[in-house]
Amino acid sequence: MAETVGLLGGGVIGGGWAARFLLGGWDARLYDPSPDAERVAGEMLANARRALRRLTLAPLPEEGALSVVRTPEEAADGAAFVQESAPEREGVKRDLLAAASRAADASVVFASSTSGLLPTRLAADMEHPERLTVGHPFNPVYLLPLVELCGGERTAPETLERAAAVYRGLGMRPLVVRREVDAFVADRLLEALWREALWLVADDVATVEEVDDAIRFGAGLRWASMGPFLTYRIAGGEAGMRHFMEQFGPALQLPWTKLTDVPELTGALLDTLAAQSDAQAAGRGVRELERLRDDCLVSVIQGLRAHDFGAGAVLAEHERALFAAAPAAGPGGDEAPLRLHSAVVAPEWIDYNGHAHESRFLQVFGDTTDALLRFIGLDLGAGGSYFTVETHMSHLGQARAEERLNTTTQLLGHDEKRLHVFHSLYRTGDGALLATAEQMLLHVDTQAERAAPAAPELLARIERIAAAHAELPRPDRAGRAISIPA
Amino acid sequence: MAETVGLLGGGVIGGGWAARFLLGGWDARLYDPSPDAERVAGEMLANARRALRRLTLAPLPEEGALSVVRTPEEAADGAAFVQESAPEREGVKRDLLAAASRAADASVVFASSTSGLLPTRLAADMEHPERLTVGHPFNPVYLLPLVELCGGERTAPETLERAAAVYRGLGMRPLVVRREVDAFVADRLLEALWREALWLVADDVATVEEVDDAIRFGAGLRWASMGPFLTYRIAGGEAGMRHFMEQFGPALQLPWTKLTDVPELTGALLDTLAAQSDAQAAGRGVRELERLRDDCLVSVIQGLRAHDFGAGAVLAEHERALFAAAPAAGPGGDEAPLRLHSAVVAPEWIDYNGHAHESRFLQVFGDTTDALLRFIGLDLGAGGSYFTVETHMSHLGQARAEERLNTTTQLLGHDEKRLHVFHSLYRTGDGALLATAEQMLLHVDTQAERAAPAAPELLARIERIAAAHAELPRPDRAGRAISIPA
Repeated sequence: MAETVGLLGGGVIGGGWAARFLLGGWDARLYDPSPDAERVAGEMLANARRALRRLTLAPLPEEGALSVVRTPEEAADGAAFVQESAPEREGVKRDLLAAASRAADASVVFASSTSGLLPTRLAADMEHPERLTVGHPFNPVYLLPLVELCGGERTAPETLERAAAVYRGLGMRPLVVRREVDAFVADRLLEALWREALWLVADDVATVEEVDDAIRFGAGLRWASMGPFLTYRIAGGEAGMRHFMEQFGPALQLPWTKLTDVPELTGALLDTLAAQSDAQAAGRGVRELERLRDDCLVSVIQGLRAHDFGAGAVLAEHERALFAAAPAAGPGGDEAPLRLHSAVVAPEWIDYNGHAHESRFLQVFGDTTDALLRFIGLDLGAGGSYFTVETHMSHLGQARAEERLNTTTQLLGHDEKRLHVFHSLYRTGDGALLATAEQMLLHVDTQAERAAPAAPELLARIERIAAAHAELPRPDRAGRAISIPA
Repeated sequence: MAETVGLLGGGVIGGGWAARFLLGGWDARLYDPSPDAERVAGEMLANARRALRRLTLAPLPEEGALSVVRTPEEAADGAAFVQESAPEREGVKRDLLAAASRAADASVVFASSTSGLLPTRLAADMEHPERLTVGHPFNPVYLLPLVELCGGERTAPETLERAAAVYRGLGMRPLVVRREVDAFVADRLLEALWREALWLVADDVATVEEVDDAIRFGAGLRWASMGPFLTYRIAGGEAGMRHFMEQFGPALQLPWTKLTDVPELTGALLDTLAAQSDAQAAGRGVRELERLRDDCLVSVIQGLRAHDFGAGAVLAEHERALFAAAPAAGPGGDEAPLRLHSAVVAPEWIDYNGHAHESRFLQVFGDTTDALLRFIGLDLGAGGSYFTVETHMSHLGQARAEERLNTTTQLLGHDEKRLHVFHSLYRTGDGALLATAEQMLLHVDTQAERAAPAAPELLARIERIAAAHAELPRPDRAGRAISIPA
């Protein structure tokens, strides 16, 4: 049976919690004095459903039910967990938590979404204050995994453990803050950056957009996978954190931020930094960490490219420039067959059999087709392109990592809309034929999204290739259908 | 003909520049007094080649040649652009730039990689100081697009324009800093966060790993696509930046960071923040921005999942828990056709046309074949496996990033060594048929490396599937050969 969470406060954070709990299979009872609370929670839930559908194919539990109630006591009544997300004013939070604590069973754990207020003070008027912890999430609550836990003077250790278990069940990553300090860990970092950002705008050094760009095209891409310490350890090279601190420690004395009160880099602090950084690296050397960092960066940038946003938009624009700069036409087209492409088998192409996956051969054939299209003078900006409509591949051999491959291309036929081509893929080292691909390409008007004749200058180039290929023997494997021999 | 860049200083930054320029088709002349310079640059180049091969399928220019020279003058001689990346000490940089400036043509632009020193002072001893700008990159230089440009008192405007053009040609995103201030824009933000991070460790509030976790599981995931201002605008909801500042402005007075010197939130500053934030949003409403933010977050987290790292590892673990909690299924093979596989179009599958690359469809078909082989009970340890010998694909539609796909499988024929199958690939959302793949699989004795009959228990399972599929109509697209219609 579904458990119930009591939610004190809707809005962006409380509504986000509602979405995460509901999609995690919990029922939710939401108290918020605003008449908009139900609408905001509904919008958050719609966002969260959309995001989660994209995020994972894993089987999700049945979505819980949301009910909006009229008092904090009603929200807490019968709840197995209570999450408070009222505005960031101590008195408001204290009163809500106190009222709800009187309606909840003594065993029910309470968590506050506060960004930085101290849990000892928030719990002051509660019945059973030992069951309050900070449970500080990050917007959007339904997507970001981090939740900071921080106990007050009277918080019981098991309160932290039980809250962490609830959050883990929702797919989150609890971080227990070991000392009760204002703003905990994450918001101390965010607030320092945010205050500096406000100074940059106030001093007219940068606009808000320039500040954002200074993050999202640079360090922000790293911070998606690695925080500052591991990043700087890698920048320190083989000598690691201690070397990095030797290089950049002196800059701490420079007026490079408004935060000019800096900790003294004593030997003891340097020892702590180096030892904790070694523990974090867990035996991984700098080369391994560099590869991990780069792999994560590549995936992050490619992810953003799909949305043509931020660093992904920069990559997409650069790729367009690279395609435009690639030699559109090399030789005259009199080579028979054409030799237009070569490639190296990348390590990530290898499947569990130790050979390049069959789809990677099609990738090489696709690149060969792209090279052919550039060769005949196709201009991607001109509103037309060739799309592959059929491919017939034959697999004759295997390729291993780092082997060099090259392809040849024979034009089998054409009309004003079609290109019928036959590619062969060889291992360059010994000339072994590894695969063939017969393809039918159709010229499409990309605006109207339908088949259309290619431009006359393309057709002229195609005619020239066809003439050069007219005397080539037809490959054995062309024109075949697949069947089991009788 | 390739142009030449003169590089003053190797190391992590100078070596990174070498890799970016070389892979961008420039020749490079590197001066560095360290005997390790050539090795470090070579390692950077190996990293960069690996990263770039994963990042893009676009046609790259021919890689340039690296030569290591013995003086700064030799590095600058004949160069079209000079990039200085010496250690962060003003005197060292001034001397290098002065020496190199005497060897370079007066028209050659110089850029310094300094993280925060003032260009007016760095140019003081140069011949033609009007051609120096800051060109501050971020590690790894060969992957991160951001480069900050900042001129000094004597820098000519065209120096900034020409440097920006060089960097854009290398796929970078120049950000011109409008006022000459210590640490420019990005490093003021990074340094504020970094100093706060050092305080957290010095005060024993958090370890270096906990500080990193507080970033990479939370705000760091947002910062990969959006900086703080746009993020907070969205958090402000429909009322935007002004509303956010009303809510969180008062917290600026709280001791939430060591940076307690905060700008006064005057009416004029609030007006500036609101107006610049409106300009940044460019008419996009909060719902649209929320979707963009969420789409980017989903792609970033999925990208990290591929490396089982950071937030991606949290997701992967949660998915394992969800799968473990889901009711177990397992048809007996009587389903006709079989439904064995589903997938989501990953962002990195998208090519320059904005659709999934054709090879990725074959990847999904290959995964479907793998699912079929597991379904019939193939044990990879048993010395036999099925290899694909022929594939005939038909492309009927396009798939975009994040779309869900599912496949069906029909057994068309079999004998003791062969499986003749027909897969269909659908977009789950609207059921559109996007592609089909007819495949012939051959059973191979993997020790002897030749075709061999499959084991009797596999054949029994195949017979059962064949019986269930006997009445299915043969797909229209099965058994076809490729040809241009008459």
